[in-house]
Amino acid sequence: MLTKNKDIAIAGAGLVGTLLSIYLKKKNYNVTIFDRSEDIRKVKFSGRSINLAMSTRGWYALDEVGIGDEIRKIAIPMDKRAIHLKDGSLSFQPYGINGEAIYSISRGGLNRMMIDLAEKAGVNFEFNQKIWDVNLDTATLYIGENEHGPFEQRQFDHIFGADGAFSRIRHRMQRQNRFNYSQFFLNIGYKELTIPANEDGSHKIDPNSFHIWPRGEFMLIALSNDDGSFTCTLFMPFEGANSFEEINTDEKVTAFFNEYFSDTKDLIVNLKEDYFSNPTSSLVTMQCYPWTYKDKVALIGDSAHAIVPFYGQGMNAGFEDITEISDLLDEFPDDIETVFEKYQEIRKPNADAIAELSYRNFIEMSTKTADVDFLLQKKIEAWFTKQHPDKWLPLYDRVTFSLNPYQDALAIGDLQKKVMEDVMQLPDIHENWQTKEVEKHILDLLDKNKADI
Amino acid sequence: MLTKNKDIAIAGAGLVGTLLSIYLKKKNYNVTIFDRSEDIRKVKFSGRSINLAMSTRGWYALDEVGIGDEIRKIAIPMDKRAIHLKDGSLSFQPYGINGEAIYSISRGGLNRMMIDLAEKAGVNFEFNQKIWDVNLDTATLYIGENEHGPFEQRQFDHIFGADGAFSRIRHRMQRQNRFNYSQFFLNIGYKELTIPANEDGSHKIDPNSFHIWPRGEFMLIALSNDDGSFTCTLFMPFEGANSFEEINTDEKVTAFFNEYFSDTKDLIVNLKEDYFSNPTSSLVTMQCYPWTYKDKVALIGDSAHAIVPFYGQGMNAGFEDITEISDLLDEFPDDIETVFEKYQEIRKPNADAIAELSYRNFIEMSTKTADVDFLLQKKIEAWFTKQHPDKWLPLYDRVTFSLNPYQDALAIGDLQKKVMEDVMQLPDIHENWQTKEVEKHILDLLDKNKADI
Repeated sequence: MLTKNKDIAIAGAGLVGTLLSIYLKKKNYNVTIFDRSEDIRKVKFSGRSINLAMSTRGWYALDEVGIGDEIRKIAIPMDKRAIHLKDGSLSFQPYGINGEAIYSISRGGLNRMMIDLAEKAGVNFEFNQKIWDVNLDTATLYIGENEHGPFEQRQFDHIFGADGAFSRIRHRMQRQNRFNYSQFFLNIGYKELTIPANEDGSHKIDPNSFHIWPRGEFMLIALSNDDGSFTCTLFMPFEGANSFEEINTDEKVTAFFNEYFSDTKDLIVNLKEDYFSNPTSSLVTMQCYPWTYKDKVALIGDSAHAIVPFYGQGMNAGFEDITEISDLLDEFPDDIETVFEKYQEIRKPNADAIAELSYRNFIEMSTKTADVDFLLQKKIEAWFTKQHPDKWLPLYDRVTFSLNPYQDALAIGDLQKKVMEDVMQLPDIHENWQTKEVEKHILDLLDKNKADI
Repeated sequence: MLTKNKDIAIAGAGLVGTLLSIYLKKKNYNVTIFDRSEDIRKVKFSGRSINLAMSTRGWYALDEVGIGDEIRKIAIPMDKRAIHLKDGSLSFQPYGINGEAIYSISRGGLNRMMIDLAEKAGVNFEFNQKIWDVNLDTATLYIGENEHGPFEQRQFDHIFGADGAFSRIRHRMQRQNRFNYSQFFLNIGYKELTIPANEDGSHKIDPNSFHIWPRGEFMLIALSNDDGSFTCTLFMPFEGANSFEEINTDEKVTAFFNEYFSDTKDLIVNLKEDYFSNPTSSLVTMQCYPWTYKDKVALIGDSAHAIVPFYGQGMNAGFEDITEISDLLDEFPDDIETVFEKYQEIRKPNADAIAELSYRNFIEMSTKTADVDFLLQKKIEAWFTKQHPDKWLPLYDRVTFSLNPYQDALAIGDLQKKVMEDVMQLPDIHENWQTKEVEKHILDLLDKNKADI
């Protein structure tokens, strides 16, 4: 095999970098991962992370390289949303039409396990190595203590930039003429809070639910960890009413949580400490193109397409990049330039689609999950899908529980939205939705829209 | 006056920087302009510029500070488009419904005159001074031979970044958290060509027309200069059929121009030399926010909002920034932070609107100007406007010959587009457009849309 002795560098020992390394190692490349930080296995990881929700695309990429079952050991299935209303009442909304689950995993826990698995596969790790620049034409990394050198130069056959939303590899690519780039920050920030385990190590609330406290302009979520704790995330505007700027004293935090999240009082026991010691982080959508340079450099994961977390697809989308690269490497093992070219052409529209869907989904999570019409619509969709699985798959299911391209999910989802807006206008729809008339109405609308869904 | 002794630095001695300096000088600020290049008055300026089209917003800003008449001396009015079809035939389309003209000015000529006028007003110029960085909190510029220092530090009370689409001042602002930024390149590039003057100094073709050779995917334009020459610009895709990549030999250039621009044969006399010695430049839309930092730093013109040239509004939009800043300085002379805050809030949506309109206008120039329906639509709009000047002003006129905010022009233009799409569907519209029925139909549509236009 011609590729046997090729040297590949990966910038970034995060989730995408480590999984990619395992794939490449299996294809007989020599792989070295550089990371600017200390080995995460030796340090505490906490304070600014949102728990991961692994779904079908992620599991597919893990299973294909044979490590899915290992990861399942630290994953907790969540088959429903648990909606905590302001009055303290609780209701549940199943995720998949067939009872499918997404899986809660702590980012730190998964990252540590992935590094272990990559090391076992024979990947070289170089931690505390800061990459500042790259020569695109020669695939040479410039590594040093600070941005102004001196640099150690390390040359490779190919380089992957898996170094996240603020990628240094991309930073160099951005300086090329005709490089398209955008970064767009939400006015909403987030802060990590914690629900610790009970003394016996059990969970204080249902670990198999994705907990949401939807409050419109802001919301709280909680995802379970396998040590009995929950990682909570408070999403809230930076400025204005009910904002991080406004809620800035012990008294205000207490009053705010008493008013809006009263049922968390005995759960987030270190509320004030968490709130003031954890940072407030920002949320960015980053899009760019091209993603690759000749056969030398390719961006992958967040460095190519950073998205907001509201569809739980950031990691899943990054893992799907790897699936695509792997398939292309099998198809064109001796032509990396073609692999890179096709990779970016195939993945770019899908990355843009999931960016758009993720951006939209804040409204769904923070507002619609508490809305009667939205819940009915979900029910009608699930019911219709059961009758006509060949004609309908709800958007959430297509994104989360299928391998359909994201760009198809976006397009079909927009069509379904139009159909359902019409259906929800039918008289007495809240009383009479499970009828032949409604079924026929949907079929007619689909037919009229010549929808191939 | 409290502001009398304040020191202001402007990065960039281009059109916006110099006009701003004249305004600030009149308000009794001390003003220093830094430019990284040699004084443009001492060097040849050519090879990669598109002639300017000064219109109402630009003239307003020049007249308000009393230099409009000086500039008019080098400006040539163009009251119509001259459309050169592929078969060699020529037709004319008036620009304004009242015979208004836009004005052709060479960028180099205007820039030289503006520097003269600024110097006369008492502005200090420091040429060959490269700004690499800025301390936002202290309004300190870092000036030096190269990016890595050593730097001379120069502190001011306020700094304006008028240093263009690739602004170094903005580069520092981009590194702040929550700074929104996008750069998007067209797949179309451009190249400057020249129609020299006749031997007696006269123009070879009508100097009072904006000449367009619309060819769909590509186009040629020509704007007159006051020395009898024309600056031509060829817009064409970078890659693909009829592209800069494809047209890459003497023979291909000749054949391409013979086929598509046959009537330019005796005009662009140094075609091959121009084509191969002048660079192919790219076209970028750059958007960002915020534009200002406290009372210390403000971006203005292209550094805040670079747009593609197809509406002829780049300079006009930059000059309108100055009008706004000037008005705000008069209103809040002792509160620059408020001036900067209101400036960006007012101008940002207008900058976004003209970016969108400019992007769309390539299609209008390159395709629709040769389209029968488009020409009829223009005629109907002009006719209706004459009857109901209080109810209709065509989009082009609103953008070019009015001071109405760009964001209103975009919104009203979209509404007018809907109305005209409906009108163009009327039976026999090509034969019977000047009728009471059509007039009433438009009135009804406007009424239905409750349009305040």
